[in-house]
Amino acid sequence: MTMYHRIQPLDEIAGKQADAHIHTLTKPLGSLGRLEELAVQLAKMTADPFPQVTPPGVLVFAADHGVVAEGVSAFPQEVTAQMVLNFLNGGAAINVFSRQIGALFNIVDVGVASDIPAEGYVNRKVRYGTANFVQEDAMTRAEAERCVEVGFQAAESIVGEGAKTIIIGEMGIGNTTSSSAILKVLTGKPIETLVGLGTGINSETLSRKISVIHRGIEARKPNPSDPFDVLAKIGGLEIGAMAGAALGGAANRIPVLVDGFISTVAALLAVNINPRVADYMIVGHRSQEPGHIEALSALQKTPLLDLHMRLGEGSGAAVAFPILQSACNMIREMATFASAGVSDKK
Amino acid sequence: MTMYHRIQPLDEIAGKQADAHIHTLTKPLGSLGRLEELAVQLAKMTADPFPQVTPPGVLVFAADHGVVAEGVSAFPQEVTAQMVLNFLNGGAAINVFSRQIGALFNIVDVGVASDIPAEGYVNRKVRYGTANFVQEDAMTRAEAERCVEVGFQAAESIVGEGAKTIIIGEMGIGNTTSSSAILKVLTGKPIETLVGLGTGINSETLSRKISVIHRGIEARKPNPSDPFDVLAKIGGLEIGAMAGAALGGAANRIPVLVDGFISTVAALLAVNINPRVADYMIVGHRSQEPGHIEALSALQKTPLLDLHMRLGEGSGAAVAFPILQSACNMIREMATFASAGVSDKK
Repeated sequence: MTMYHRIQPLDEIAGKQADAHIHTLTKPLGSLGRLEELAVQLAKMTADPFPQVTPPGVLVFAADHGVVAEGVSAFPQEVTAQMVLNFLNGGAAINVFSRQIGALFNIVDVGVASDIPAEGYVNRKVRYGTANFVQEDAMTRAEAERCVEVGFQAAESIVGEGAKTIIIGEMGIGNTTSSSAILKVLTGKPIETLVGLGTGINSETLSRKISVIHRGIEARKPNPSDPFDVLAKIGGLEIGAMAGAALGGAANRIPVLVDGFISTVAALLAVNINPRVADYMIVGHRSQEPGHIEALSALQKTPLLDLHMRLGEGSGAAVAFPILQSACNMIREMATFASAGVSDKK
Repeated sequence: MTMYHRIQPLDEIAGKQADAHIHTLTKPLGSLGRLEELAVQLAKMTADPFPQVTPPGVLVFAADHGVVAEGVSAFPQEVTAQMVLNFLNGGAAINVFSRQIGALFNIVDVGVASDIPAEGYVNRKVRYGTANFVQEDAMTRAEAERCVEVGFQAAESIVGEGAKTIIIGEMGIGNTTSSSAILKVLTGKPIETLVGLGTGINSETLSRKISVIHRGIEARKPNPSDPFDVLAKIGGLEIGAMAGAALGGAANRIPVLVDGFISTVAALLAVNINPRVADYMIVGHRSQEPGHIEALSALQKTPLLDLHMRLGEGSGAAVAFPILQSACNMIREMATFASAGVSDKK
């Protein structure tokens, strides 16, 4: 797994060049706020003082969760596979937003519980869903390593197709339960602050979900300092793949636009594999899922949007993407005081 | 001025149809948060359950302010005209973001202090800049009425060209001073909470700016219940035009995307002319200019973005525009549970 360690430091020189150029543009200094910060960050990531983020590449990883047998989700398990078909037919939210931003789009089956009766997706099934982590390890350590590798390769592949930003999304009924469990192990925060209503469960199911996570962690005893152990014991296959995709983007100096709760937990797992990957991450939006607050705090990132979304699939990141584009367009296209003949500050 | 009173009520039936359709789309109920609310709002505004917002029409109104003679701005007055040339050459921030969102774009000279040595803009100069409102009324009442009319007509004209959203921007050295003064008169809040650093003044200039506004309001005594009187006494020509453009958008059932501080103050003026115009307004972003907090509170709107911007020109609204587009694309393009064959909640 040496590939996870080939992430380069940020290019501070490109960052300084970008910053210096922004100072010459026809606008009061600092008046584009976070767009200016983003342009500098993107310059450092891409080692280009005039960074480009288009086209973005959207990766949606799908997998199932054995823990749904405990009754933790509002939707039945078959919805994972049904939504993969919806992705393939272009009808899901992430399809709509991906078209809007002109994204390359790949859907990767890393562990859906059934075979997908269609073509046009990337079949990298590691296993038919995880095991129920209350009863047994979610997957073997080899499978945990394999799903991270699948994600890494999916990122390299879409970068090969021309993607200049990676947007990481997911589909997996039950995956907020696994994400909250992982977040509990990685942060040690009170479980009640890390668990939410997912796709829309009631308060009785919420209590059950909390209890399931408690019992799962108790029974599995994942080692917080070993991200592959955490993933193997209580993880999701798509969550491991998302972590791998973040590492794959960063290893190629491609900015990684993180989505909401599950995506941020996966990002944290990636940071536990190689802390340097965090330098290549930008978080698209603040999710309504309450655990996202702690996940963002652990990742030390402030999201671009706060639109009360909680859908997943990468939808919040895709809706946020035009902001990155604005940051790049600013630095690439705006006139300078000198070129435009505009008087600078008195 | 009966034209300001032909704004129709929101179409609640179209809103209900939009809401009902959103309930059938392949996603957990409410999971797209504010995008769902926006889609319903846009349906009500446009009287179309499947609203469209593209292409947007960006209107940038430029004018000068006699009050700059008091030394309230960080930039010299000639920058207003220089920036108009920059707009015409496509080098300003609003040009860059307008291209990104595929906007129709008109720049309207409603009162620049000099003649613009170029073509390609809309010449509706009401006068060569306002008078210094510390010394005399900024403009006559007839001029106040005229600049609102110019804005109204500019909106009607760009709607005639096909604009489906109006984005209202401005350029005018000194216009945060006039905006803070108007906001003081309209809200009665302590002036210290309404004044900020504008394009980047120091604390000495800030004290002077506060004093100038105090003295101006004291000397002019604008009537808070008469928006044309407020505009005539302490206003800006472009601020009046922006108010008119909001009224013009609303009168044509076209959503009005408000920008930052100055744009929001103009929106408030418009609401004082006809309260119903507020139903057609969405605020693009929260400005760093401190008075924006009170302006938003008076307008009772929550911005879409908070990216610490404070440039004006309509730049924050343009950067926010893709969010409206996402809301429309969602309702227009997403599959339903039935059409996609996805199981609904258990």
